[in-house]
Amino acid sequence: MDLVYLTILLALVEYTVFTALVGRARAKYGIKAPAMTGHPDFERANRVHVNTLENLITFIPTVFLFGYTVDTRWAAALGFVFVIGRAVYAVGYLQAAEKRGIGAGICGLTNLALLFGALFGVIRLLALRWVL
Amino acid sequence: MDLVYLTILLALVEYTVFTALVGRARAKYGIKAPAMTGHPDFERANRVHVNTLENLITFIPTVFLFGYTVDTRWAAALGFVFVIGRAVYAVGYLQAAEKRGIGAGICGLTNLALLFGALFGVIRLLALRWVL
Amino acid sequence: MDLVYLTILLALVEYTVFTALVGRARAKYGIKAPAMTGHPDFERANRVHVNTLENLITFIPTVFLFGYTVDTRWAAALGFVFVIGRAVYAVGYLQAAEKRGIGAGICGLTNLALLFGALFGVIRLLALRWVL
Repeated sequence: MDLVYLTILLALVEYTVFTALVGRARAKYGIKAPAMTGHPDFERANRVHVNTLENLITFIPTVFLFGYTVDTRWAAALGFVFVIGRAVYAVGYLQAAEKRGIGAGICGLTNLALLFGALFGVIRLLALRWVL
Repeated sequence: MDLVYLTILLALVEYTVFTALVGRARAKYGIKAPAMTGHPDFERANRVHVNTLENLITFIPTVFLFGYTVDTRWAAALGFVFVIGRAVYAVGYLQAAEKRGIGAGICGLTNLALLFGALFGVIRLLALRWVL
Repeated sequence: MDLVYLTILLALVEYTVFTALVGRARAKYGIKAPAMTGHPDFERANRVHVNTLENLITFIPTVFLFGYTVDTRWAAALGFVFVIGRAVYAVGYLQAAEKRGIGAGICGLTNLALLFGALFGVIRLLALRWVL
């Protein structure tokens, strides 16, 4: 499972970078806390950060449970695709809102694959225990 | 623990549906990213999504630790109640803000039971190790 | 790992208190859902809550993986510092936005230590398996 853990940690390193970019945009455009709006560049940096959080709450448990109940190497492979997809998403969205689609799509599809794969794996384990 | 994992995955399936509803409301009311306000229906769909995220950060670790340290079947039972409570919350809140109370209350109570149950379970394990 | 689990649960107890404070501020200042703005005191209470969520998505997996791959007692020690840092952050930020810096800094540094420590631990495990 170590490769699966590595993908979780790499996703969190990316997320930490996105957190820092929000702080930098807040300083650059003089957005005073607690305000979360006021300049489009700040708002896009914030959405990159928050949308990544919204993705991680699904990604972290499902990449773990997919690896645990289905296949570790496939879980890690999907995890690496997610990490790349988040970078594509951030680079695009920080330029313009219209450029967020490809990265968002990659991460949405990997999360769906991890979620329904893990669901299949857990239900299979429950069914096997029921039968045996 | 497989039934506990199942409740986590079912909660994440619900959450994925709520994510899709935000995207649909964004398109329907023409709210351009990165804006997160602009129409009450969009804002309620967004709050259903974000409030579920706010609940999951407590639910996922505590249903796991309650199952691990107290009782697996009770953890799974509370987990299923949480999943039902989220559906009640979403159906209500998407209609009107006043209708979000019952579902929010169910999930708040199950999360409190899971949190303080898991806290009891972990402290009991620490106390037993101290004594033995 | 029980001490590590205890720090996760204590952080979630704090977070649950912050959730309740948002509800109280919403009632006190008459902010009607789904609005998330309208009074500076409500907005600061909300930011305490949401920023804690933003921190927990990194804290929970990394304190676990640091404890699992590096050292359990150091993970728990860093976890307790995080819990104290969050309390300092909340007490400061609820008074004034300018007073959020120290607590935010403590939690930022503990999360960085947990993240890069866990990354070191996981990569070391992968390297050892490669060699052996």
